[in-house]
Amino acid sequence: MNQYNYRELLQIFESYLQAHEPVGSPDSLYVPMKYINDIGGKRIRPVLLLIAYNLWHEDVSPALPAALAVEYFHNFSLMHDDIMDEAPLRRGHESVHHKFGRNAAILSGDAMLIKCFELLLNAGRINNTGATLCDIMAKAAIEVCEGQQMDMDFEHLDSPSEQEYLEMIRKKTACLMGVSLQLGAELAGADKDVCELLYHVGESMGMGFQIQDDLLDVFGNEGITGKQKGGDILRGKKNYLFVHTYNSSPENQKQEFIVAYHKASEEGNIASIVEVYKKMEVSEIPDQLQKDFFNRGLQFLSELDSDKASVLKSFVQALLERDH
Amino acid sequence: MNQYNYRELLQIFESYLQAHEPVGSPDSLYVPMKYINDIGGKRIRPVLLLIAYNLWHEDVSPALPAALAVEYFHNFSLMHDDIMDEAPLRRGHESVHHKFGRNAAILSGDAMLIKCFELLLNAGRINNTGATLCDIMAKAAIEVCEGQQMDMDFEHLDSPSEQEYLEMIRKKTACLMGVSLQLGAELAGADKDVCELLYHVGESMGMGFQIQDDLLDVFGNEGITGKQKGGDILRGKKNYLFVHTYNSSPENQKQEFIVAYHKASEEGNIASIVEVYKKMEVSEIPDQLQKDFFNRGLQFLSELDSDKASVLKSFVQALLERDH
Repeated sequence: MNQYNYRELLQIFESYLQAHEPVGSPDSLYVPMKYINDIGGKRIRPVLLLIAYNLWHEDVSPALPAALAVEYFHNFSLMHDDIMDEAPLRRGHESVHHKFGRNAAILSGDAMLIKCFELLLNAGRINNTGATLCDIMAKAAIEVCEGQQMDMDFEHLDSPSEQEYLEMIRKKTACLMGVSLQLGAELAGADKDVCELLYHVGESMGMGFQIQDDLLDVFGNEGITGKQKGGDILRGKKNYLFVHTYNSSPENQKQEFIVAYHKASEEGNIASIVEVYKKMEVSEIPDQLQKDFFNRGLQFLSELDSDKASVLKSFVQALLERDH
Repeated sequence: MNQYNYRELLQIFESYLQAHEPVGSPDSLYVPMKYINDIGGKRIRPVLLLIAYNLWHEDVSPALPAALAVEYFHNFSLMHDDIMDEAPLRRGHESVHHKFGRNAAILSGDAMLIKCFELLLNAGRINNTGATLCDIMAKAAIEVCEGQQMDMDFEHLDSPSEQEYLEMIRKKTACLMGVSLQLGAELAGADKDVCELLYHVGESMGMGFQIQDDLLDVFGNEGITGKQKGGDILRGKKNYLFVHTYNSSPENQKQEFIVAYHKASEEGNIASIVEVYKKMEVSEIPDQLQKDFFNRGLQFLSELDSDKASVLKSFVQALLERDH
């Protein structure tokens, strides 16, 4: 059976996305939805869903509405998160609330969340899995909200513990990557235990992926990542590098580090923090941790037939080695 | 078979609501959800759902999660609408975004919308209707978003036409009342055509209900409605009285009316507008229109067995005569 690779599935998904633009009335509700779909993104979640479905079925077209559903969910969460974080940019373009106003971003985000469920129900019609897909999605969606709220709550703490931070990114980021694989497998009619196994593959990848993002923020190459170097520091965001540094600093230096972090953010100069990170060789631990998570994902995969696992393995490998 | 009346069903629902408070972690996500549930409301939508279910089943307890779902949806929409309208008050209490902040209101609203689907799936497990219930809800939910967007778009017009206004309130308000009855009937296992009939009963009631709200804004008794007299005028909101007055004014007086309406809003003095309304006997048309809608609802009901229709008929009658 033909298994598509990442690039092929991405192309299939992009064509479907373009052919299924959100349309309706009034325009003012639908244009922001179309906008966020059109400004790009890695499409990791829909492609994961298609990879999972493709493990059992050569023709992935019945899974495309479900793939669109997870991309809609992701875009809904970006629209609302960007309001909360007051982020002016998204994927190198104006964020939705900056371009169309806060109210449009709230309401179009709501509509994308609702359409996510509608699309899952459409997908599930082929084999009567609509309720199952929606139930998995709803539980994950609540976790995403909980993760986002934890992230906002962290702003009012000196620092969360490492464990709290990892729980936050599990909910906010990793969960949806796990669910993307799980939904693809459910729709394909796979056994429950395989569906759950794939959830854990995706969740582990998602953990690695987020820690990698935190590392790339400081140690990535701006020209390659396309993101401002030290953007998390400049926004005063407590990412894994911050949390790890804070928690592994001696008690009498913790407060000093926080003060320096605030100052760097206020003055728009990340040099002092990068110096601390380099001096403490702080990147070693997260670098090892992200590898551990990706390897955990690969380990879960080894429980699948080896021919089934190959495309996913290459995908995990490609993510592990990404530089942007 | 015992049919509960409105008051009894309200009591059953309130007990269920209190016993099923939204709980989870972090608190900061769940406390605003609990807050908006606790500050009251007429609970019209969940009671409508229970009335419909009760037409076929004496024990309404299997329908309670679905009743909670429509109340959650309603509360989600209030939380987000209040941000968009910058409303400081809701049901005589601080609105959620005023009390807990804008971000909490966005995110807790999102969570309530998601939980609405989760609750419908739970309810549907008794007879495998989860996907059907969610599909009906999703389609209505999109209409509610479209209605809210139309309402916001109206702010930038001199005035919508009467037809546009009626379409807006159909989507924003009436649709969810129709769906509440429809969901109750679907869950009860009623025939499709009866479910759709009940949708139309609820939609007609909802139209009458909203026009009545617009009338009560100016002609209600503040001591009884518990709302500020002329609140819509003070907020510059284009309700049915405004739209009807504008559209039935001679061309050369339209602009004058708009200027007076803005001035009343700015100066916090509704007297001049109330005078226009009284002089033009403007309340007669909406008063007739709301009665027409309620009567249309009663007409739909006449297609049901008369013993089935009685509780709903009394409910429509009670709404028709409400003064708050």
